[in-house]
Amino acid sequence: MAGYSISKDDYLKRLRRIEGQVRGLQSMVEQDTYCIDVLTQISSVTKALQSVGLGLLDEHIRHCVREAAVESEGAGDAKVEEAVAAVARLLRS
Amino acid sequence: MAGYSISKDDYLKRLRRIEGQVRGLQSMVEQDTYCIDVLTQISSVTKALQSVGLGLLDEHIRHCVREAAVESEGAGDAKVEEAVAAVARLLRS
Amino acid sequence: MAGYSISKDDYLKRLRRIEGQVRGLQSMVEQDTYCIDVLTQISSVTKALQSVGLGLLDEHIRHCVREAAVESEGAGDAKVEEAVAAVARLLRS
Amino acid sequence: MAGYSISKDDYLKRLRRIEGQVRGLQSMVEQDTYCIDVLTQISSVTKALQSVGLGLLDEHIRHCVREAAVESEGAGDAKVEEAVAAVARLLRS
Repeated sequence: MAGYSISKDDYLKRLRRIEGQVRGLQSMVEQDTYCIDVLTQISSVTKALQSVGLGLLDEHIRHCVREAAVESEGAGDAKVEEAVAAVARLLRS
Repeated sequence: MAGYSISKDDYLKRLRRIEGQVRGLQSMVEQDTYCIDVLTQISSVTKALQSVGLGLLDEHIRHCVREAAVESEGAGDAKVEEAVAAVARLLRS
Repeated sequence: MAGYSISKDDYLKRLRRIEGQVRGLQSMVEQDTYCIDVLTQISSVTKALQSVGLGLLDEHIRHCVREAAVESEGAGDAKVEEAVAAVARLLRS
Repeated sequence: MAGYSISKDDYLKRLRRIEGQVRGLQSMVEQDTYCIDVLTQISSVTKALQSVGLGLLDEHIRHCVREAAVESEGAGDAKVEEAVAAVARLLRS
């Protein structure tokens, strides 16, 4: 999956940043930071995670779904269903 | 903020688990894991973060909002507005 | 529940507007409007509904939760739990 | 867009049901229904709307995105970007 590899470094950088933000949340809790400020930071980490997810979804449709669709209609349909189910999980989380 | 302190260890444990999950996401990307599986894991980390947020919200209303409300109606109202704005940010993230 | 009644007309106005938007969605589908435009309109109706929900949540905490908290700590705690569970349902929808 | 037409009746039926639910919300507010019950119903209407949105997204990728991708890589990429932007709007609503 070429596309995925090209932006791998970008995803890793963003996920390492998110890891740092989660450690930041731990410090906030340890230092009894005001709840609302912790909640605001949680919203920001969630947004960053969703944004990585949207990037992966973009590449997935662009590459995997397309390749499957070129192969056969049945294969394409199965990939679309799988991708939409993943979006539903993102929405419900 | 007594309530917060009582469950501090629980929040820290959950946030350390989330930190581990974010590191797990990095390994998944490094190993070219199938996009849909990475997306599923992202949904699960998001859900875990939201759940920490809901716990904090519960304690916040139970303690800070209540104390402010006892103090004066104006103080209580300000705290409620602030808490609902935080919920709005969670919803939009 | 005085607070609720005061803004009742405002909620009804907003809900009637949302009803109109849902009828608009039906016309869009009937006229084979481009999917993405229908999706954009769905996002906008969802946002309007969530906004009514946040308004109700604000009043609920401001009045019902506060009154229960003044009555007894147990009653207040039960109301807070119920409100946070409602927020969790909004987040998962 | 053949696929869209096939399920048009299903979408219209679901949207008419949602319209009825929004009218139900108006009656609930008019009758001073307990806020938490109104909030629960709002979550349920939101979920129904999102579910219509996911159905449209499925058909859109299956038909429009695929056709564009068969036409040319550039056209396919543009359609994917547009669809992911629509998912982002659903997530943020």
